[in-house]
Amino acid sequence: MAVLVGGQSPVSGPLIVPQPQQMTFGTQTLQLNPLKFQIYCPSKSPVLASAIKRYSDLFFLYGNGAPSTAPAAILNIKVISNSDSLYLGVSENHTISLVAAYSLLITADTVYGAIRALETVSQIIQYDFVTQRYTIPNTPISITDYPRFPWRGIMIDTARHFVPASYLMHTIDALAANKMNTLHWHITDGQSFPASSVTYPNLTMGAWAPEAVFSVDDIKEVVAYGKSLGVRVVPEFDIPSHTYSWAAAFPTIMANCPDYTYSYGQLPMSIANYLTYEVITNLFTEMSGYFLDTYFHTGGDEVPYGCWKEDPQVAEWMNLNGYTPTLAEQFFEDQVTSILAKVNRTKIVWNDPFVDGVKLDPSTLIQVWDSSFQDIVNAGFEVIVSFDYYLDEQVPTGNLHWMFEDTWSDFYAADPYNGITSNTNKILGGEACMWSEQVNHLSMDVRVWPRAIGVAERLWSAQTQTDVNNALTRIGPQTCRMSQRGIASGPLFPDFCMLPDDFESYLQQPRMRLSKEQINTFLNNN
Amino acid sequence: MAVLVGGQSPVSGPLIVPQPQQMTFGTQTLQLNPLKFQIYCPSKSPVLASAIKRYSDLFFLYGNGAPSTAPAAILNIKVISNSDSLYLGVSENHTISLVAAYSLLITADTVYGAIRALETVSQIIQYDFVTQRYTIPNTPISITDYPRFPWRGIMIDTARHFVPASYLMHTIDALAANKMNTLHWHITDGQSFPASSVTYPNLTMGAWAPEAVFSVDDIKEVVAYGKSLGVRVVPEFDIPSHTYSWAAAFPTIMANCPDYTYSYGQLPMSIANYLTYEVITNLFTEMSGYFLDTYFHTGGDEVPYGCWKEDPQVAEWMNLNGYTPTLAEQFFEDQVTSILAKVNRTKIVWNDPFVDGVKLDPSTLIQVWDSSFQDIVNAGFEVIVSFDYYLDEQVPTGNLHWMFEDTWSDFYAADPYNGITSNTNKILGGEACMWSEQVNHLSMDVRVWPRAIGVAERLWSAQTQTDVNNALTRIGPQTCRMSQRGIASGPLFPDFCMLPDDFESYLQQPRMRLSKEQINTFLNNN
Repeated sequence: MAVLVGGQSPVSGPLIVPQPQQMTFGTQTLQLNPLKFQIYCPSKSPVLASAIKRYSDLFFLYGNGAPSTAPAAILNIKVISNSDSLYLGVSENHTISLVAAYSLLITADTVYGAIRALETVSQIIQYDFVTQRYTIPNTPISITDYPRFPWRGIMIDTARHFVPASYLMHTIDALAANKMNTLHWHITDGQSFPASSVTYPNLTMGAWAPEAVFSVDDIKEVVAYGKSLGVRVVPEFDIPSHTYSWAAAFPTIMANCPDYTYSYGQLPMSIANYLTYEVITNLFTEMSGYFLDTYFHTGGDEVPYGCWKEDPQVAEWMNLNGYTPTLAEQFFEDQVTSILAKVNRTKIVWNDPFVDGVKLDPSTLIQVWDSSFQDIVNAGFEVIVSFDYYLDEQVPTGNLHWMFEDTWSDFYAADPYNGITSNTNKILGGEACMWSEQVNHLSMDVRVWPRAIGVAERLWSAQTQTDVNNALTRIGPQTCRMSQRGIASGPLFPDFCMLPDDFESYLQQPRMRLSKEQINTFLNNN
Repeated sequence: MAVLVGGQSPVSGPLIVPQPQQMTFGTQTLQLNPLKFQIYCPSKSPVLASAIKRYSDLFFLYGNGAPSTAPAAILNIKVISNSDSLYLGVSENHTISLVAAYSLLITADTVYGAIRALETVSQIIQYDFVTQRYTIPNTPISITDYPRFPWRGIMIDTARHFVPASYLMHTIDALAANKMNTLHWHITDGQSFPASSVTYPNLTMGAWAPEAVFSVDDIKEVVAYGKSLGVRVVPEFDIPSHTYSWAAAFPTIMANCPDYTYSYGQLPMSIANYLTYEVITNLFTEMSGYFLDTYFHTGGDEVPYGCWKEDPQVAEWMNLNGYTPTLAEQFFEDQVTSILAKVNRTKIVWNDPFVDGVKLDPSTLIQVWDSSFQDIVNAGFEVIVSFDYYLDEQVPTGNLHWMFEDTWSDFYAADPYNGITSNTNKILGGEACMWSEQVNHLSMDVRVWPRAIGVAERLWSAQTQTDVNNALTRIGPQTCRMSQRGIASGPLFPDFCMLPDDFESYLQQPRMRLSKEQINTFLNNN
């Protein structure tokens, strides 16, 4: 076979994505016998038990291979806290050491640190298709790893195009493969309302079709599936704009502004209607029972003030209260903060209300899609950064490329600290955003990956990890590894990726479904 | 269900892609009963019989639906010539009429015209997911259709990344869905040599891996599969450059130029080595036995003259013959033309030799990837146009877009006549090119479609068919239809596409495999 590599500068040592914070390695190769590979973990955590089962498969993706005379190997997993509680900032720190031959050790503060370590172990185990043997090269290995930012996510928009719950779980697999820990589920928008509610079953009249709906069980399964891999699932119900889909069930909670119906996707609610707040209160209260995370995103973007001015009822209400549109928006945002506070949820909004001049509650977390957010962190708000991380965009940062996928390097270069000179401690991390106007679950893998791998490493690895060639050399194997697991992450340079026979079973599908018992256990144990 | 369309300007009448040349339609709706739908075709053509079987399934993709009281309907197919011979310029003209209720009539000069008509019929049959009934709206319908250009294709590069033969057949399904008729198979390049040869079995030592190889049977099956849908499969073996992969089997046929090995992908052959011509002769003679088409692409692009000057043997040979590099290239091209003439093949090359100043044989067909080709048609050469149709490019024509997929409109706007003021009759058509540096078969559907639909319509429909909004309204249903058939063509605007339960079986897979008997019949009957 001709040796035909992609022409990239080689990286020595284990090719891990994201690049670990600290790593030492040697030059020996450990032979592994899949039939004599044991995992020992005294933890009673049901989440960790599920993850160990999953990774036992991923370690040996090609079955037992050729008969091996290698001795037994053991992977010991030591976790300090056995709590399954998953929340922003839960420790993901871990160490991995393979110093004595055939004895691997993972240590971690939490089960979620152990899950991140298992992903790394899955990346250092190599399979040789010619000899059909598994090895760990570059031993002895010692890794100490931890994330740079606690919030590392992907936003998926299920409103412009519906994607099945199974696809969201598939995406959680992909997030975990890149040590990302947050799925921001932009569940509703002007175009459709796919979330089932027991309180308001008619809301899904605003779905694209009866088949384009998430049942309550779907939502619970996605949240539990996220937890099984240490991925927080944060819902977004975008209000007060982008709510036209709510009108199918509740026509009167929409503002009445015929001049603005051309932008129906963005049409806002009537904020002078009592029913508006009643629906929001009851819906968000119900949903906070399904979404475990303490953060709850309420959008808040792109309010067309002109619509409120045109609606006679809203205009009269603003006039009687002496509200400018900005003050009216502030009234609305304050109401939403209070509604969420009653169910112990912290509000997230896009940066629009801040830019509009709304004085937001100091507890508000602000997701930034505008380029400039120095004034937001200076005002004391914590932020998550999505500027430069829009996966739907043609050219993220105005750079020009010959080839489509070279935009990955723009994402990679976009550090959350770029342009921020003070209060960088307010930056909790970032999210790559997959707005779905031009993508559905058939095409989404390819649009998200491998480009979002660049975001994953940017948010996990050290700030100094900026060498594009080094990253490319590691992302090559990573995108192949993801493909081998059934995630259609395309290549960035010419190469060959050998796929297992069953990879097609996992295209657009989750790797491992949870049992009903696991779903209940995971949800009831946070 | 809320009515939430994509906000595009509506098009009245049947939504067919590519837009037919002539069509009249009415306002009635014909109910169809799949259990009482007969196709009557007196033709004995095995190709047409295969296509009728395929389209019988595609007409009724959702099974029998709800019980229907609609009377029996019949589709009569009348073909003037029953010849299965497939070649450039074979008539694809056809008419479709549904004037008397329940009686559809297709007339065509050839079986390939009938196949195009069957695709149109599959597009006018609608399935209602609520009533579970099939209908043909807009009757009576009368269509007279024919292509603007005889050469309408896609180029797929199987060298930068290997794609399985099954994926090429899947792509042929997609071509036929858009009435494209040519698969240009860029089979080898510097990075890999995946084509098996009986004469030179060692050539596949230059493949990425033993698994990344097309067997002779694979090649025959792809060619036969193409024929089953009226798609000519034209091979490209790119010489004299882009041939580094040949060196795994034949090191001495490569030029020896150490200063140029950095661009190994582009490294040229030694044109002063007798073995070079011997290998080309025997390989092309063998391959012309598998590829039925009379056109044979030999690349000819990007010859680095400096390499020939650096190679002592080539330099001496050029010197002794008084050859400049251009004259040496001309000598080589003349040899290749002669080699192909002996097996009745017409050579195609990229426009590079012409631009280099090589005097090409007048029979040569030139594929244009440079923007200016007025002088090429003025010199009397026939051309196929690929400028503006590069699917791997970020921004095809220097236009800027917010969203990735909006590049489709650049392809749509790029008429082959653009900038050409005389000898437009020399333009045979065009090809959208999927160079595969950053794409493999897991990600290729999404990269090619729906953008190449724009090219398909540009090359089939009337030159005056340029309304982007009109096209978008039709491409919406078309991209959904392709997805329903298992071709991952993403959406261009927010909408919902209901997928049949079995669509996943066809992801990256051909719709219908041919039997060995069919393959032999189709290949032996041209």
